[in-house]
Amino acid sequence: MTKGMTDSRPFVLAPWRSQLARALHRNRSKPESRYFQLATVTTEGRPANSTVVFRGFAEASNQIQMVTDGRSDKLGQLQANPWAEACWYFTQTREQFRLTGHLSVITADHPEVQAQDDRRLAWQKLSDGARQQFHWPQPKAKRQEDGEPFAVADLDPVQPLDNFCLVRLDPLAVDHLDLRGDPQNRTRYVYQGPGQEQGQGDGGWDAIAVNP
Amino acid sequence: MTKGMTDSRPFVLAPWRSQLARALHRNRSKPESRYFQLATVTTEGRPANSTVVFRGFAEASNQIQMVTDGRSDKLGQLQANPWAEACWYFTQTREQFRLTGHLSVITADHPEVQAQDDRRLAWQKLSDGARQQFHWPQPKAKRQEDGEPFAVADLDPVQPLDNFCLVRLDPLAVDHLDLRGDPQNRTRYVYQGPGQEQGQGDGGWDAIAVNP
Repeated sequence: MTKGMTDSRPFVLAPWRSQLARALHRNRSKPESRYFQLATVTTEGRPANSTVVFRGFAEASNQIQMVTDGRSDKLGQLQANPWAEACWYFTQTREQFRLTGHLSVITADHPEVQAQDDRRLAWQKLSDGARQQFHWPQPKAKRQEDGEPFAVADLDPVQPLDNFCLVRLDPLAVDHLDLRGDPQNRTRYVYQGPGQEQGQGDGGWDAIAVNP
Repeated sequence: MTKGMTDSRPFVLAPWRSQLARALHRNRSKPESRYFQLATVTTEGRPANSTVVFRGFAEASNQIQMVTDGRSDKLGQLQANPWAEACWYFTQTREQFRLTGHLSVITADHPEVQAQDDRRLAWQKLSDGARQQFHWPQPKAKRQEDGEPFAVADLDPVQPLDNFCLVRLDPLAVDHLDLRGDPQNRTRYVYQGPGQEQGQGDGGWDAIAVNP
């Protein structure tokens, strides 16, 4: 069930992409429509959940992009368990997308040239303020105010800091719940892999209407 | 590290409660301020994440209440792994609370009288529309439109349906991130248990300012 950027099959937009694009468009007046909550599993087998900013889709891919600080707990967690579930609730249209799949991380020492180009591009797209956060002292360490640790630094807007990471969620299942329906509408999309489905235009995805 | 309703110690409001109460008050114009995302771990060890409605605190307790359908996957998951992390993002004030702890479920056959009273009260507080959802056919099963499965039923507003469950999150750690600061402010609260701290008014909780 491998797929993604290094796959030689022609890229097909997953059927849930049009639904998600519509939700992003209809909720565009709400800044929080660009955020979702990402759940992972810690090395102790406990759930972790945090708000993450959507950084667009990887090119010619259904992978959802985020950025993270390499000094956070997240990287160690993902090596032990790459699974994640994003829960994306759109307040204006009252829709929820749950996207389940594997996370991959592009760190400063990732060997692929294209991956490094993508990582640099993600850095360049950040606001100045967002870039500064990667220069702040160790996340979650006890706060010290000596020496102005949060003073604004003169950062290169082209070349990312070493601890800046690009993260991608490669969905294998998507649950779309529309609360406005009466009853509510819910569609479940499951990736079945290429095989027979290829060429049918669904990119290997099944879609089924389920009870809310 | 046991605590909660059956504890004989006098109840002390956890120090993060005033912060959360303030956030709820300041964001009260936003209906979504009553929702949060709850992450759990499935029996396969994968993260699950969904939007849940806040149903208040259990009486004389720091436990956060929710309701769920006993026919969902959640109950089986919780028996295998009771850990959960709620991620509660307040859009108006740009604050995030992450609340980590154990979930407990009060089903129709829970033996304690007080617990059943609480479960009934939670049912009575639901809107008519929310109650109807517990009468709908099996959640996430393939949708059938034969026989008007979603027709409005005449439900008892006093006595809950058997599949109606009250769920409680008993936090052991809370991470409060305030994005409006420059730099952002982050406080980490950790429950240390009763012991020495008792009588100091913090209910056994440590609070520490950490880097965002």
